[in-house]
Amino acid sequence: MAASYFSNGSGSAPSLLDLLIESLRCLPGVGPKSAQRMAFHLLQRNRDGAKTLADTLSRAIREIGHCKACRIFSEHEYCSICLDASRIRSKICVVESPADVLTIEKSTDYKGLYFVLMGRLSPLDGIGPKELGLNILEDRLKKDTVEELILATNSTVEGEVTAHVLSEIAGKQNVQTTRLAQGVPIGGELEFVDQNTIAQAFAGRKSY
Amino acid sequence: MAASYFSNGSGSAPSLLDLLIESLRCLPGVGPKSAQRMAFHLLQRNRDGAKTLADTLSRAIREIGHCKACRIFSEHEYCSICLDASRIRSKICVVESPADVLTIEKSTDYKGLYFVLMGRLSPLDGIGPKELGLNILEDRLKKDTVEELILATNSTVEGEVTAHVLSEIAGKQNVQTTRLAQGVPIGGELEFVDQNTIAQAFAGRKSY
Repeated sequence: MAASYFSNGSGSAPSLLDLLIESLRCLPGVGPKSAQRMAFHLLQRNRDGAKTLADTLSRAIREIGHCKACRIFSEHEYCSICLDASRIRSKICVVESPADVLTIEKSTDYKGLYFVLMGRLSPLDGIGPKELGLNILEDRLKKDTVEELILATNSTVEGEVTAHVLSEIAGKQNVQTTRLAQGVPIGGELEFVDQNTIAQAFAGRKSY
Repeated sequence: MAASYFSNGSGSAPSLLDLLIESLRCLPGVGPKSAQRMAFHLLQRNRDGAKTLADTLSRAIREIGHCKACRIFSEHEYCSICLDASRIRSKICVVESPADVLTIEKSTDYKGLYFVLMGRLSPLDGIGPKELGLNILEDRLKKDTVEELILATNSTVEGEVTAHVLSEIAGKQNVQTTRLAQGVPIGGELEFVDQNTIAQAFAGRKSY
């Protein structure tokens, strides 16, 4: 711990300010310098905001769990999307993270349901089918009348492997699977698009 | 609030996740996207860290105040530097923020005391002598036998004005003032140093 000039009394014990700086480092992308800046800022200029943050954080950890049907974050047993009667229940879109749900909701007019893996298959990190809740998804495919399973995992190696495993599960229940189109991004100049994308886009060319 | 897809029940009330994302924005440099990423990260991967952060933050807001002598953050009445019997009590270094104390402690072998303004004179923002605790500093200059007041405010317009006001207060008590040297930074190439700095460095040239 670099900042120990604020230590007090016995000398060896870290001060409360040191503890605060250290605990702020649990935030992603926050190193020792940013943590120190955040701590000073909160104590000096925004104690009210800091209090709200502390209280909301405590409550969120206690109360926010996962939707029983789609595994997205939810304070209730089922999330608002799964409870929404206007959504088409015969389509399920599988994504890796809750942020992907937000992205799809913002960018498209998709009105089906979701299933959030909360990760991707990665055996080396100990993330297998059970960690991704694939048994819950399989149950849904068995019980509900699902017509299309949209595989919207990332276009990375792990994402592709995960999509493949998902398609096998869907195949067993005779559910059709689709995968997001791959190709040149809108506004992209060919010169600056990577070779793999060009190759995929070229192979997947459509009549114009 | 952009992310309201997690809202539940009544529909209009923001969800706890929305509240968490909103409250994380009290941190400096954290916009809506980073706040969302932080919230997801804490809920998905580091609930223990989040709990520690919430608890430490609550405690810090309650317990961390300011040292009665130098105004730096302290859980106790006086900070560890002011209580340290080995520090030279005839020198006081005036800085704008607690971070400046850390910087000077790390970079120099200064063994005197400090006075932290917690800001700089800025009448338009309502920051006058009282907000900077200049009366507390004046009392120290009157009561203690201070020989040197080191003006280590920033080298900005507000910092210079603040230094000037401090020197007037010191003058009334017949205390000598010094100011950090200005010039070309170590490792700096003349070509890339700004004109004001070059002018100052040129005017302040020393025999070699």
